[in-house]
Amino acid sequence: MSVAVSATTVDAFLGGKVEAVQPKDGHHRAGLEAVLLSAAIEPEFAGTVVDLGAGVGVAGMAVAARCPATGVILVERDSEAIACAREALARPANRAFAARMSIVAADIAEPESSRAAAGLGRAIADAVVMNPPFLEQGEGTASPRQARAAAHVLAGNGLETWFRVAASVLRPGGRLVVIFRADRLEVLLAALGNRFGDAAILPIHPRAALPAHRVLIGAVKGSRAPSRILPPLVLHPETGGTYLPNVERILRHGVGLAEAHLPWVSDTRG
Amino acid sequence: MSVAVSATTVDAFLGGKVEAVQPKDGHHRAGLEAVLLSAAIEPEFAGTVVDLGAGVGVAGMAVAARCPATGVILVERDSEAIACAREALARPANRAFAARMSIVAADIAEPESSRAAAGLGRAIADAVVMNPPFLEQGEGTASPRQARAAAHVLAGNGLETWFRVAASVLRPGGRLVVIFRADRLEVLLAALGNRFGDAAILPIHPRAALPAHRVLIGAVKGSRAPSRILPPLVLHPETGGTYLPNVERILRHGVGLAEAHLPWVSDTRG
Repeated sequence: MSVAVSATTVDAFLGGKVEAVQPKDGHHRAGLEAVLLSAAIEPEFAGTVVDLGAGVGVAGMAVAARCPATGVILVERDSEAIACAREALARPANRAFAARMSIVAADIAEPESSRAAAGLGRAIADAVVMNPPFLEQGEGTASPRQARAAAHVLAGNGLETWFRVAASVLRPGGRLVVIFRADRLEVLLAALGNRFGDAAILPIHPRAALPAHRVLIGAVKGSRAPSRILPPLVLHPETGGTYLPNVERILRHGVGLAEAHLPWVSDTRG
Repeated sequence: MSVAVSATTVDAFLGGKVEAVQPKDGHHRAGLEAVLLSAAIEPEFAGTVVDLGAGVGVAGMAVAARCPATGVILVERDSEAIACAREALARPANRAFAARMSIVAADIAEPESSRAAAGLGRAIADAVVMNPPFLEQGEGTASPRQARAAAHVLAGNGLETWFRVAASVLRPGGRLVVIFRADRLEVLLAALGNRFGDAAILPIHPRAALPAHRVLIGAVKGSRAPSRILPPLVLHPETGGTYLPNVERILRHGVGLAEAHLPWVSDTRG
């Protein structure tokens, strides 16, 4: 398959352990959320991890780079993003983990049968990580480029579809990790519904005194255990754009949430 | 009405500004949650505040004591708790605010018509505070005394009924404040539903490194604004049973949340 990708950049994550190829503009560019999402998987985690709606693959690559006992499947519908991910996996910097990764071209809104035909069958995953588009249809300003719009906008049933597909792909007892806008907490919890339990809710605050702008949730398929609101993760000091030391360890050194933010370890099943 | 109340105690709140009469045992005894709940109403708040399921009236009395421009209605179904509340309002210590308080004997599970006949009509309140029973039917160990069990156990439709009645009692734009178990966050947010918006979610943690055990939510009737997860309120230092200084100010000095925990003020409409 050959897809024309206009100008791309190569961006380093985890202090260079991962190199992502991203369209220079016009696309949703991966960053903070993808790395925080990947950090929720412990380094000892073993099994198949699906990165649902992977974009150019930053979260999935970061999981593969950090967790040597994982095989990671990137699931993405956008051909340009897939081309970027393929190019990234061919880069020397990613050689240490690229062999444990694969790419499935599929739209999560497809019927289960065609998802399965594409390689995304039922109960194939031990964990699913996902970072769904942050805008809902009709929300926000229209983007000039269609690709950028598609990556930012939740179509149709919105989050409900994402959680349904995640539940389908996961084995019973498998783990879901999702990062999303904090102001949609009620929609996230409703979408977990009866499919998931034992939810660990991690509010992520830009600064200690400000409301959370993101929320990261870990949950277990089929569990009936109640949810927990964890002590928050704060990104920046009171002023300035630097990251707090424990966040820096996650972003630059590939340290997992369980080590960099102790409440996560004490309350998330391994 | 004369109800035999067995042994009672008089307990001071807000450093003695409020004296509550409580059954010595057999009943759910009010405490921390009631005072935190009352602290969510700013001292300048003016209007009618309904304390729904008031028990012996601690939250409502604390609001009346702290907020001189409020009139407070205690709504309670249990005759023994009502007798305690009446006795408390007659105490000299509570003279400063007792004239601004009234008691409505009503069960929130009654039909709206009989609630209205009892004095709890539609849209009478500018704010509602509530601390619903923490246990659901069939949950927890059976209590030897029925009254204690009733105060602890959510009947029938559970939280849904509480939020429906709160929405009925509030005027449009009126404020609801609820404190509840943090592990029922999804049920709380679902119960807010389309009736309330602009929810300020305040996780309350026993210690900074532990999950929240309580959550306090402020919301506005009829608002469509999204929810916010606020920086948490932490009660105790890392070890020991003392309260942190800002919590002590709330509990012993009657300082409001908006002053003692700045994130509350910056994100809650007045």
